[in-house]
Amino acid sequence: MPAPIPDAEQGEPDARRYARLPDPFPMWRGGMLHGAQIAYETWGKLNAARDNAVLLFTGLSPPAHAAASPQDPRDGWWQRMLGPGLAIDTDKLFVVCVNSLGSCFGSTGPASIDPATGRRYRLSFPDLSVEDIARAGHEVARTLGIERLDTVMGPSLGGMVVLAYAALFPGAARRLVSISGTLAASPFAIALRSIQREAIMGDPDWRHGHYPADRPPRTGLGLARKLGTVTYRSAAEWQQRFDRQPVRPDLKGNEPFTAEFSVQGYLESQARRWVNAFDANCYLYLSRAMDRFDLGAHGDPPAALGKAGLEQALVIGVESDLLFSIAEQRAIADALQAGGAATRFAPLQCIEGHDSFLVDIERFGRELKGFLG
Amino acid sequence: MPAPIPDAEQGEPDARRYARLPDPFPMWRGGMLHGAQIAYETWGKLNAARDNAVLLFTGLSPPAHAAASPQDPRDGWWQRMLGPGLAIDTDKLFVVCVNSLGSCFGSTGPASIDPATGRRYRLSFPDLSVEDIARAGHEVARTLGIERLDTVMGPSLGGMVVLAYAALFPGAARRLVSISGTLAASPFAIALRSIQREAIMGDPDWRHGHYPADRPPRTGLGLARKLGTVTYRSAAEWQQRFDRQPVRPDLKGNEPFTAEFSVQGYLESQARRWVNAFDANCYLYLSRAMDRFDLGAHGDPPAALGKAGLEQALVIGVESDLLFSIAEQRAIADALQAGGAATRFAPLQCIEGHDSFLVDIERFGRELKGFLG
Repeated sequence: MPAPIPDAEQGEPDARRYARLPDPFPMWRGGMLHGAQIAYETWGKLNAARDNAVLLFTGLSPPAHAAASPQDPRDGWWQRMLGPGLAIDTDKLFVVCVNSLGSCFGSTGPASIDPATGRRYRLSFPDLSVEDIARAGHEVARTLGIERLDTVMGPSLGGMVVLAYAALFPGAARRLVSISGTLAASPFAIALRSIQREAIMGDPDWRHGHYPADRPPRTGLGLARKLGTVTYRSAAEWQQRFDRQPVRPDLKGNEPFTAEFSVQGYLESQARRWVNAFDANCYLYLSRAMDRFDLGAHGDPPAALGKAGLEQALVIGVESDLLFSIAEQRAIADALQAGGAATRFAPLQCIEGHDSFLVDIERFGRELKGFLG
Repeated sequence: MPAPIPDAEQGEPDARRYARLPDPFPMWRGGMLHGAQIAYETWGKLNAARDNAVLLFTGLSPPAHAAASPQDPRDGWWQRMLGPGLAIDTDKLFVVCVNSLGSCFGSTGPASIDPATGRRYRLSFPDLSVEDIARAGHEVARTLGIERLDTVMGPSLGGMVVLAYAALFPGAARRLVSISGTLAASPFAIALRSIQREAIMGDPDWRHGHYPADRPPRTGLGLARKLGTVTYRSAAEWQQRFDRQPVRPDLKGNEPFTAEFSVQGYLESQARRWVNAFDANCYLYLSRAMDRFDLGAHGDPPAALGKAGLEQALVIGVESDLLFSIAEQRAIADALQAGGAATRFAPLQCIEGHDSFLVDIERFGRELKGFLG
């Protein structure tokens, strides 16, 4: 698809392709987009029957680059999970990973140019909902000639998106995998995300969304990322990993009350990477979309999910997840089962919290391989 | 004690008394204070044998006003726990609650006037340690003519202070009660506290500690308080209490990305109260003191605690506590037992997280009454 590549550095490898969304693209809570696009990457081959496709939605922050490919040999965010012979076996499956609508890695979002004005949308971007992300992904599958997915799959935000997908598109997928998602954002998660948004908006450099590209609200973004990082992991993991080791000298500043412990250095290095990679306004939109998600808007969850006509479902959750509790995972599984899908619920004992799906490839891989195989 | 009352509003009830600390008062990590004082309140009567005293240390933020008294009839932070016939029975016990050294409710701290300069200490206040808070409380007891406490007691920060107290002052207490404290700050708690400090320091109004009294770093303090509040409670409690109810209209602003859910309004109301009540520099000092606390600095915990010669100990912890895990409570109990105190460990099933001791008076009261009675 001969689309512009809006944010790739000259000469960097790039496996993204772009799907144009219908113009206009009406948004779930009102407003519409014109000339919008979704960046995606693919692995494996769509078979002749076009029935081996997996549509993969991401968490809040990753790009579509889930794994290496000839066009972009760099490791992806699920590198050890997705590939030939791996749990998501691209010898058999055709995998499509989309960068979420509203994000900033090639898909249209608040950092994109509004064709009506020639300037970035910023806060004039219409309200974004998890349902819009689902619909945009669905359009990508249609563009690729896929009538029915083998599996729709997503972790975290993606775990919400797949539920919206099921409610919105009857018959569009045969199977569903929800990883550490939720039927409706919990007040605890809302609290933690809203503090992250306030950290960004409280930074004078945010300028009500009108920061220059070379001067984003670094302090607020850094704080938001640090807090996000804490919520994605667990106390038990960090006790093992950092204990009370002193901070690495290069991550120790000279300011008063500077970092003293290794865990603070870890947060600092996470924040430094993030501040230069993610657009602040996109983060605000995506984060709020997560808070607002409530499958109940589509009816009682079993009925809403039942509309999808799913044959099978897999729900994976982690006992140590602070942000999307194991009780929430069980509720998803119960609703899918009640909605008619033969559902396996896999509560895992990983200690890495919400991010376990990125880390504990062995446990998660075993579940995914068993389900997909 | 005819001491100045540095921060009471004219005409407000005030039960505080003040103890002068030895001059100079050497600090645990170096430096010293001159003319320092500790604010405290008392309930009940010291008996003739002077052996019925309870010294109560507070969490990070409360003042010495733990309960009402004739001099100040307003409810205190442990109102339903401490009084005649209550779990901490002031018909029998003489209770002394101290405002921590380094705090801002009458005790000397970074917001106090440095007698050497006539100006506020701000960041020139010497390094503050949990050990200094323990020593300052010990001096209050000595001032009151108490040779040996019946019980030294504290929740949260106070739960760290009592352990430092035991290590520092052999024979100074017969019994010890540690509530939701720790032998050494965990990396998870350090991470969460350091983000709160950064929120304050990242606010341009902090001005490297030189904010005017009428213009504190409100944005940063508010963020810090919101995050603190999340860490003090639990997801399960908030699901019951807030679910996805909409925010109260008076707590919903007009800004973009404003509060939409009840839990956000709750955080906002907590923050508004806090911003006008607590000094930012004091918060930074106390928060860092918690991070730095490691009883291991006094030797192996059983040996360090064994020096105290305690007869009995009670350790109370809460399964839902995010910040001071139940495993940490068990470790305190094990160390006290190994150090020679007959120790009861009470892991409670409260759902209110770290703050349960303030909320679940029934469960905590039963344990305290059983131990003290």
